[in-house]
Amino acid sequence: MKTSGSADAIVALQENAVNDEEYFFEGTEKLLEIWFASSMARGRVSGHGQSEAGPDLRRIDRLDWERLLKNVRCEIISQKNNASIVAFVLSESSMFISKNRFILKTCGKTTLLGVIKPLLKLVHDKCGFDIIVDVFYSHKNYLRPDLQPSSHRKFDDEVDILNAVFEDGAAYAFGRINRDCWYLYTLDLVGVIQPDQTLEVMMTDINKDVMAMFYQSYGLNADQLTKKTGIADLIPGALLDSFLFEPCGYSMNGILSNGGYFTIHVTPEDEFSYVSFETNVPQESYTELIASILDIFKPGKALITLLANEASMANDKENHGVSSYENYRRMDHQMCQTKNYYLTYSQYLRSALNGLSPPQ
Amino acid sequence: MKTSGSADAIVALQENAVNDEEYFFEGTEKLLEIWFASSMARGRVSGHGQSEAGPDLRRIDRLDWERLLKNVRCEIISQKNNASIVAFVLSESSMFISKNRFILKTCGKTTLLGVIKPLLKLVHDKCGFDIIVDVFYSHKNYLRPDLQPSSHRKFDDEVDILNAVFEDGAAYAFGRINRDCWYLYTLDLVGVIQPDQTLEVMMTDINKDVMAMFYQSYGLNADQLTKKTGIADLIPGALLDSFLFEPCGYSMNGILSNGGYFTIHVTPEDEFSYVSFETNVPQESYTELIASILDIFKPGKALITLLANEASMANDKENHGVSSYENYRRMDHQMCQTKNYYLTYSQYLRSALNGLSPPQ
Repeated sequence: MKTSGSADAIVALQENAVNDEEYFFEGTEKLLEIWFASSMARGRVSGHGQSEAGPDLRRIDRLDWERLLKNVRCEIISQKNNASIVAFVLSESSMFISKNRFILKTCGKTTLLGVIKPLLKLVHDKCGFDIIVDVFYSHKNYLRPDLQPSSHRKFDDEVDILNAVFEDGAAYAFGRINRDCWYLYTLDLVGVIQPDQTLEVMMTDINKDVMAMFYQSYGLNADQLTKKTGIADLIPGALLDSFLFEPCGYSMNGILSNGGYFTIHVTPEDEFSYVSFETNVPQESYTELIASILDIFKPGKALITLLANEASMANDKENHGVSSYENYRRMDHQMCQTKNYYLTYSQYLRSALNGLSPPQ
Repeated sequence: MKTSGSADAIVALQENAVNDEEYFFEGTEKLLEIWFASSMARGRVSGHGQSEAGPDLRRIDRLDWERLLKNVRCEIISQKNNASIVAFVLSESSMFISKNRFILKTCGKTTLLGVIKPLLKLVHDKCGFDIIVDVFYSHKNYLRPDLQPSSHRKFDDEVDILNAVFEDGAAYAFGRINRDCWYLYTLDLVGVIQPDQTLEVMMTDINKDVMAMFYQSYGLNADQLTKKTGIADLIPGALLDSFLFEPCGYSMNGILSNGGYFTIHVTPEDEFSYVSFETNVPQESYTELIASILDIFKPGKALITLLANEASMANDKENHGVSSYENYRRMDHQMCQTKNYYLTYSQYLRSALNGLSPPQ
């Protein structure tokens, strides 16, 4: 998404202001997910708990979250709640708070890893969470790693930061580490036992005609855009919160009453176009959903990851196999089985024009 | 294997001579495999050709190979031929020459990538090979990357060297890039069409009682050791060439009349014990072979890779699935499908003592 006017954009302008032609925005997000438990809580923490007693991240004040996000260099723009989950649209991407799960996704030049230590203190002081059940830190390779803050330029350095806080971290690189790839850091613990799954679709070289719609000048507001593009129909029944940035860029959070979420972020500038989709909504097959996403955005390249644990309905053969998508050719397909999670990584290249302008 | 008295050991002594207590030898090999073709040759090159006309790497003089290996800092110790393949035991590991396939595996502080440019010139000038059909460069993470020659310390730098020569290289890292992993660089071409497969078993923290046999002081010569350990029985019918280094360390090449080979290298010192097994012999299942290898060496950790193309009989479900080995627990299991090759990576940890001293 676009950050004009945000704290991060101001920093970017200060640090890299050369001239307009060199303007660059890193749409690629860093994604952190941490599951907590308390040694004092009675019984098992259920994650999608409605009104159970015990520690609950959702009871943390917005002011505390705002203060926390200063460590990351981003701000809260909008908020939607239901009984299970609190969803924030940020100046750079999104944050989702469940009872015992924290998800923060930030793009641009944000310093996401700076959140960890203050977060652990916050959840301990305010909620009494003193056990880290699992951690997932991931991102696609940045388009311009050289423009990232020094702590985020190399995955090895990010791993060092994580290892200074967590024990038994396992770091992986999927895909081609000299081109497109996806980095993952997770703990070598049994971790989350309840069904858990995360699907991500990370798209680059997006179709120009589609990206044109994500400019304010196109004339649609955020809600109209969400409907017209078909984004609103991707996961039915969700409470949506969409935001259109000035002069361009788009963020959308959708939440379901059962704790499910999905989120989309669009960086539409042709020179560095990037769109991400993420959801934790379990499906026996994601093939149709992914096909719809590819059909909406028509990216030149799509990198798809699915992380599902043994208890998840998404952890079946179809989801981990090779799917075919019209107009797309599969490049790499990787699978990784580790602790109780199963990961699938696939990269697809657009092979057909589909009546629209060709990918770059 | 051990390199006392070899060119590499001398360089090591010169560069790192501090005191005996700090002696270290990197058993972990670098492995390069290149397949060639000629635009002038009639018909398709068959790889295991017996007496076909056309360019043939096996016609290159030993003196030329010796000169070539100076670029890598290693020397030829022994040689065995059959109608299909020439196998060299080197001061640091092995070299296998087939009609149109070059394999060089070197350990220690060798500068393997230094061979590429002079090799391409040699095979062009002497054989007329002017087409590179496929390239595979791989190694396990080094035990001590800091002691490697500067060009080999980081895989990123190795990839830069390879990319300066080859086009469309794809670089991968399998396993945990902050602990045990395996790096692979290969070309993004359709590549080798005939059946091709390479199995590697890379073992560390080897059982002390087993390693004691690989010292001269134990009293067995190389041939006796090959028989007594069970190495001789791993792949029946092979012509064997084994070598025991002074004061310790072992290398073995085995070749079959159909062009198959297998090779084992042992670095027995307890502080940095390492054993590697490699073969291109096709099998419908490698489970029994791998179990025999684990039973001989009883390593604390074993990293197993299988790279097989679509035409290979090794490219079936059993080989790419999760196998169980007595006394071993699987840590990571990864699969990667790319161009016409399928790779499986697995890491196993020893979980039982099996009546012998525990792994380190």
